[in-house]
Amino acid sequence: MTPPEYTPEDRPVAALLAPDILALLDDSPTAVAAETEELHAADLADVTELIPREKVAVLLAALPPQRAADVLEYLDEDLRAEVLEAMSARQAAALVSEMTPDDRADTLEEIEEERAEEILAAIPAEARRETEQLLAYDPDTAGGLMTTEFVSVPASMAIEAALAAVRTIARSGRREAMYQIYVTDETGQLSGVLSLRELLAAPEGAKVGDVAWTEVVTIPAQADREEVARVISNYDLVAVPVVDDAHRVLGVVTVDDVIDAIQEEQTEDVQKLGGMEALDEPYMTVGFWRMVKKRGGWLSFLFLSEMFTASAMGHYAGDVTKVVALALFIPLVMSSGGNSGSQATSLIIRAMAIGEIRLRDWWRVALREIPTGIAMGAGLCILGIARILLWQEIGLYNYGTHYALIAVTVGLALIGIVTWGSLAGSMLPFVMKRLGFDPASASAPFVATLVDVTGLVIFFSVAQIVLNGTLL
Amino acid sequence: MTPPEYTPEDRPVAALLAPDILALLDDSPTAVAAETEELHAADLADVTELIPREKVAVLLAALPPQRAADVLEYLDEDLRAEVLEAMSARQAAALVSEMTPDDRADTLEEIEEERAEEILAAIPAEARRETEQLLAYDPDTAGGLMTTEFVSVPASMAIEAALAAVRTIARSGRREAMYQIYVTDETGQLSGVLSLRELLAAPEGAKVGDVAWTEVVTIPAQADREEVARVISNYDLVAVPVVDDAHRVLGVVTVDDVIDAIQEEQTEDVQKLGGMEALDEPYMTVGFWRMVKKRGGWLSFLFLSEMFTASAMGHYAGDVTKVVALALFIPLVMSSGGNSGSQATSLIIRAMAIGEIRLRDWWRVALREIPTGIAMGAGLCILGIARILLWQEIGLYNYGTHYALIAVTVGLALIGIVTWGSLAGSMLPFVMKRLGFDPASASAPFVATLVDVTGLVIFFSVAQIVLNGTLL
Repeated sequence: MTPPEYTPEDRPVAALLAPDILALLDDSPTAVAAETEELHAADLADVTELIPREKVAVLLAALPPQRAADVLEYLDEDLRAEVLEAMSARQAAALVSEMTPDDRADTLEEIEEERAEEILAAIPAEARRETEQLLAYDPDTAGGLMTTEFVSVPASMAIEAALAAVRTIARSGRREAMYQIYVTDETGQLSGVLSLRELLAAPEGAKVGDVAWTEVVTIPAQADREEVARVISNYDLVAVPVVDDAHRVLGVVTVDDVIDAIQEEQTEDVQKLGGMEALDEPYMTVGFWRMVKKRGGWLSFLFLSEMFTASAMGHYAGDVTKVVALALFIPLVMSSGGNSGSQATSLIIRAMAIGEIRLRDWWRVALREIPTGIAMGAGLCILGIARILLWQEIGLYNYGTHYALIAVTVGLALIGIVTWGSLAGSMLPFVMKRLGFDPASASAPFVATLVDVTGLVIFFSVAQIVLNGTLL
Repeated sequence: MTPPEYTPEDRPVAALLAPDILALLDDSPTAVAAETEELHAADLADVTELIPREKVAVLLAALPPQRAADVLEYLDEDLRAEVLEAMSARQAAALVSEMTPDDRADTLEEIEEERAEEILAAIPAEARRETEQLLAYDPDTAGGLMTTEFVSVPASMAIEAALAAVRTIARSGRREAMYQIYVTDETGQLSGVLSLRELLAAPEGAKVGDVAWTEVVTIPAQADREEVARVISNYDLVAVPVVDDAHRVLGVVTVDDVIDAIQEEQTEDVQKLGGMEALDEPYMTVGFWRMVKKRGGWLSFLFLSEMFTASAMGHYAGDVTKVVALALFIPLVMSSGGNSGSQATSLIIRAMAIGEIRLRDWWRVALREIPTGIAMGAGLCILGIARILLWQEIGLYNYGTHYALIAVTVGLALIGIVTWGSLAGSMLPFVMKRLGFDPASASAPFVATLVDVTGLVIFFSVAQIVLNGTLL
């Protein structure tokens, strides 16, 4: 089967090939491996996701173990766990043994713990030790992302010998990451790095230590995956070595794992920013009650916080009774505060996520947000006053004799509330971070709620000053 | 100077080294190149960003041209443009000639057009042609991201000859991307791919065509950068070839450019989701009026839309006068609709961005959102009714004789508004996409505004039904 070209916005390969492969599985399962040989494992994984669940194990069994492991690596997490849990521990162990150590550890982490231990017990001793070491790291850290298979050579080795060694490893069928060759000194510490390309380019007769870069960007095992992403992206790397305190290489994080981490991290951030817990699963497959729980929790918290508006309004009920016109503008004025807060909080959360802004910058941010808020508030003030005067003049609505004062109340309240919204929205991520929470928890709805309650107080305080002696 | 280790949350290298390098620039500029030789170009670029502007050209002049070009590639866009615009066209041409073609094109795109053409005219003919070709592509497409320097060999070439050719290129000091070697047939069409590692592992005596993968993931030049990112990430690639209609390789997009594109795209999405235009610049450096414009435009649009709430409220002013207690709960009920809408819209925008959900899925999404909205609304309904009954019972507030009916009004309105918020929030990104806009323009504040206006109507309609004959 020839692989169709990639077309945007779809994964057509899988949909096109699934029926054929399914038919082949029924007719002559032994032919499946050869027929799908040229397909990218990612495409074959997509096919696997489309065929009936009971056929998945049949398909994997029809492939050579290494190929089946490749397909498993690209498979949807839930399906992968399901498939492995349905197999015997020995069958599953045979498959996961063929995976790269980092994927093997990630896979075992996803499946049911007891079953994971059975599988772990059934894989060869060396791979088991390696996997256990990786499982000890938090999956969201450099240690949790790294693979332990990498190529390192001593600095004293001759270039030609190093090239021969690399060639041997490349031919061995082992799965070392090989973009970079790491160079160690006699104590085993990392002393340099060179790319496969630089190894090829090196003059004959030189030693590895002569041509390697002695400056190596490294990362500690406990570094958060966001930091790993920042380093890889800042230095345009394809792989970064993870080192221990003695500067010995523990493993390597490759760029493909980092891209996945960046995407996941961004998905979490957007979901939190929207005012909910991160789903941790694709939208379409998350269960109904799980979805309700992830969203309902925050929604209830926001609802309970927003109840203060009812209390605040109760406090000002007398004013509302006297000047019903005030009530008409409450949603308008309040929402403007929420909107300016939402803008500010999104800006700051993102700038923090990419490392543009740090905790100590809060003061500089506040100094930017206050004038920005005043300028935007002044703009809305003009629009708001114009709206009230216009409606009154052309007779669309009668706000009473003191309509001009009501217009001034709304206008001044807008300046105050938009400025306060910008300031509160920009400062909340700093407060969250300072308190040890994820700054992204300072979601747009959270800011809006905060600004709603305080905004009401600003609105009625302005009203009491402006309308004192006339309407109030 | 030895490079300090990377420490999280900071770019300490630059801050630590800048004073030394600055002193060296004054004392013995000729020593700068040797002293900074082992620094990563990214770190040296960070240093460059920290020293006084007038010293930047001095520093770059003190480095070998290729090294200076490397530093320029990592420099902040605005500073890079400034530096190149301040040089003579010949000096600037000497620097950009040393850049990789894709960075050269990107750089010229950033600087003032007339000056860019002068620089372009001063670079060598071949590089100029190459650059002009790249400049013809939209910078946000695969063509705009790709570099034209890559390694390709004919399928009929022997492995050893190919390795020798690759070695010659690696030694030439040219800057070809070399993670993958592309294999062409006799018509020049792309027929296969193999990694440098696979080339090394190939058995002696074989031909390149025998060992290359014939399945090659490719991307058309006009593909959007989001699509490029999706392909690179889906297939775990370090580089993807860009092909023309005849399946000839035009260039290669490497993963580092894709990571930058993913980050930029994500920053834009978060800013739009926050209810503003994308800044396109770092938060800390964007000018005051530019910031006000990017945020004030949307804020004014939202304000004008939200004015409908004042009109709607005006319509129900009679009800508010009769039952002031209703007014107290307007912010609470409305904000819950906005919050559920914000959740739904964030979820869907993100799921669309990573390709999990497509336009045709709108119906399946609606079928998920309606029951989710009802369940969450029912939860808030219970909380809301409990709150009113509790306050009434313990005497915190007196909602009048018909307080139970007011509680029922608030509760039922919450179910309606939260369901409507979830539905509207999830459908708006589809509507945006269908109309040809970026789905991320369906920002949280936009959804909240939409739901506010319609939410008021729901609230007062419920009130009229429940309170008909008693309070209204």
